[in-house]
Amino acid sequence: MRMPSAKLTAVTLGVRDLQASARFYEAIGFRRKFRATGDEIVFLDGGGVVLALWDWDKLAQDAVLPGRTPPQSFRGATFAWNCATPAEVDTIFAKAIEVGAGLLRKPERDRLRRLSRIFFRSGRTRLGSRAGARTEGGRLILPE
Amino acid sequence: MRMPSAKLTAVTLGVRDLQASARFYEAIGFRRKFRATGDEIVFLDGGGVVLALWDWDKLAQDAVLPGRTPPQSFRGATFAWNCATPAEVDTIFAKAIEVGAGLLRKPERDRLRRLSRIFFRSGRTRLGSRAGARTEGGRLILPE
Repeated sequence: MRMPSAKLTAVTLGVRDLQASARFYEAIGFRRKFRATGDEIVFLDGGGVVLALWDWDKLAQDAVLPGRTPPQSFRGATFAWNCATPAEVDTIFAKAIEVGAGLLRKPERDRLRRLSRIFFRSGRTRLGSRAGARTEGGRLILPE
Repeated sequence: MRMPSAKLTAVTLGVRDLQASARFYEAIGFRRKFRATGDEIVFLDGGGVVLALWDWDKLAQDAVLPGRTPPQSFRGATFAWNCATPAEVDTIFAKAIEVGAGLLRKPERDRLRRLSRIFFRSGRTRLGSRAGARTEGGRLILPE
């Protein structure tokens, strides 16, 4: 079989308080889906990808890795939400702080003239807005 | 401003050896994009989301978090590639092992009758194939 073209279809975050995390992500605009699965796992519409939330220990067990306490140092991945406009970044950022996000970095323009802000809660989400970043139906389109 | 609908547009993995990681992800089917950015950061087409690879320390610094050595315990997130068929899972899995992935879990059917396999390399990727999982243009479609 020829190698199929690769797809990252879902990201699952391990969280300590599933309901609190679900409220947080819903408050900043992620829409809950697939409620039939009940309260054990939370599925959210992330645009081009599914964002799922699950109990930290269960996800660690599922990945066959020791769970331990969530490390306070960098965990190896960041998650971006590229917005259509800087105003959109402002709105989401203010909302995120309002509903309990911990601030990691203040708004700034990086060398790509992108307004980027980072906050932390049950994972690390970066809100970026780049002038001219092409999006199509919620996907970030990269040039070749 | 009304809250915009949320989008997870890009996932960036911190890696120790950028070129080796790029070769790994390209070997299992992720297509390199946006080469104009040069060799400092790698962008890959992940279907509905962008998969990026960047130096572990630089990404940690960007996230304003202490980098330290990558923890060997669970880091809090898993990444899924839902395939169209179990045969596709087999192909990708075999290729991943061939090009250096470390095995975490052997193929099995979970309670959702999904063939799932997990491997590790510069991040954690789960290959899942669920009978009847609806995909559309590379996106996993969830029921309401």
